[in-house]
Amino acid sequence: MHTAKSLQELIVLKLEEEARVIGSTVPVNLYGPIEYTLNMGGKRLRPVMLLMACELFGGQPDDAMNAALAVEIFHNFTLLHDDMMDQAELRRNQPAVHKKFNENIAILSGDAMSILAYHYLLKTETPAYKELIQLFSKTAIEVCEGQQYDMDFEERPDVSIDDYLKMIRLKTAVLIGCSFKMGALIGQAGPEDADRLYAFGINLGLAFQLQDDLLDVYADQEKFGKKIGGDIVANKKTFLLLKTLELATGSQRTELLFRIGQTGFDPTEKIEAVRKIYTESGVRQISESVMDDFYQKALTELKAVQVEESRKEALLLLAKTIMKREH
Amino acid sequence: MHTAKSLQELIVLKLEEEARVIGSTVPVNLYGPIEYTLNMGGKRLRPVMLLMACELFGGQPDDAMNAALAVEIFHNFTLLHDDMMDQAELRRNQPAVHKKFNENIAILSGDAMSILAYHYLLKTETPAYKELIQLFSKTAIEVCEGQQYDMDFEERPDVSIDDYLKMIRLKTAVLIGCSFKMGALIGQAGPEDADRLYAFGINLGLAFQLQDDLLDVYADQEKFGKKIGGDIVANKKTFLLLKTLELATGSQRTELLFRIGQTGFDPTEKIEAVRKIYTESGVRQISESVMDDFYQKALTELKAVQVEESRKEALLLLAKTIMKREH
Repeated sequence: MHTAKSLQELIVLKLEEEARVIGSTVPVNLYGPIEYTLNMGGKRLRPVMLLMACELFGGQPDDAMNAALAVEIFHNFTLLHDDMMDQAELRRNQPAVHKKFNENIAILSGDAMSILAYHYLLKTETPAYKELIQLFSKTAIEVCEGQQYDMDFEERPDVSIDDYLKMIRLKTAVLIGCSFKMGALIGQAGPEDADRLYAFGINLGLAFQLQDDLLDVYADQEKFGKKIGGDIVANKKTFLLLKTLELATGSQRTELLFRIGQTGFDPTEKIEAVRKIYTESGVRQISESVMDDFYQKALTELKAVQVEESRKEALLLLAKTIMKREH
Repeated sequence: MHTAKSLQELIVLKLEEEARVIGSTVPVNLYGPIEYTLNMGGKRLRPVMLLMACELFGGQPDDAMNAALAVEIFHNFTLLHDDMMDQAELRRNQPAVHKKFNENIAILSGDAMSILAYHYLLKTETPAYKELIQLFSKTAIEVCEGQQYDMDFEERPDVSIDDYLKMIRLKTAVLIGCSFKMGALIGQAGPEDADRLYAFGINLGLAFQLQDDLLDVYADQEKFGKKIGGDIVANKKTFLLLKTLELATGSQRTELLFRIGQTGFDPTEKIEAVRKIYTESGVRQISESVMDDFYQKALTELKAVQVEESRKEALLLLAKTIMKREH
């Protein structure tokens, strides 16, 4: 069995190769931006997950490579269109496609990427062909739903914690669950084990997103690699903010509402102030505890999978690494 | 066997039903615009073609209904995103989705529609499952290529007739070919007959687009139902314009180049003047003759299909109706 790192290297090579082929296809204004997007880098987490799940049940990475490319291409398609919808200028420190090229090119090359994802998936040879494609399609539409909820929540004053968890489940967790389950199906796992891999991925994905929210507030900026406090500055309705709005009373509540309503503020000061409220109100701890619950649920699902324990080690290590628990 | 009209009625009913289901799904900002789009009307030509091809080989419309919905939903997705890219205000006399809602909603609900098209297609029960989906995916990406060429051609001064024919083949003809072939596959046609239906559709699609270009210039505005001369006003590089640029000399050429370069012109005057050049240069006739060649090629393909001649009557009538030759 391969380590996550060696599978990642395999995927990076394969993606580079495919990006080259795609980039040399005409019309260049359609395929060039797709090559650009695929070459932007990233951790390639979802395809690694897919290949690992396949190996867990004795499948070969080669059998699952096209499906792995499909989830990565789909994920990058969603980032491309999301960046345009959010009017984000940068993606991984490079100009977003709608900035580097233009908005029409961003729309159309994104459209083509989502179809290309199917194109790769359809090349997979497996007895689970039909189930695989249906799972992918169901997931793809759920990711759109998640993105719509995310946009809706920006305008809605009444977002609950349950709403939020539903949104991140759709926007983030289902594609992770799908990646694991697709790998399991290609590896010819039984239906129960395939479902366990899905549940493993869903819970890991939820924990992962909650951690992302926490890191935005509490990360060491140098280690985190991106600017922290962005969610606070934008009043993004994260678990932390929603839970604090639910729990905080008295001066904490007054202070939080003041910070949310403030215009023309100093970002550093706002970040400091809101971070202090999150910590003192106990919401940081609650958030960490909810995150840990999802993580433990994920581990329980993995434990229940009917393969030898030693085969699970690579996946366990991946989960730990993602949750930064390997240190 | 059903007439085109009765199949169209079947599709309209089914589409209304599905639009209702889709429209009652949450999030409403994602699914509402899809319902709106599907309820905009239209001739539903592609699904009718698909069902007719299925019946040609003895299949039942019910067997092919999900595939028929898939091509119609996909076609409407392309219109939705094209309208946004073209900044078109209206579609079938109603506000385009990006105007009725907003641009982000247009991007995302379009994305969801293209996935929904797969969702319906994947429900089809047929031994040709894999071939069906692969054909659909190949076609879908070709349609994106066609749209990109169309946008590219607006900026390019050197578009040839061959470029133009390649573009309309991708943008328009392949989805028509795909609709016929998908119907044939579901109707369990042999591979050669399925390919003939594809070629029938490609050639019919090319003839159809050339006719559309001609109608924009020569149609009786009342019968045509939309404003004529739009291509001329916009200097759209149609077969007529490209061929005239290739052939016209002397004063005709001077006049045409003047009309193309003119700003602040009176639209009616420009349309009249360019129409006159198209007619007098003989390009109208050339265009009609090329259109007729494609139409005849389409008929030849249909003739070669190995089923009883009487079964082909409905399809022949449809082809004639589309090409307005029934009058």
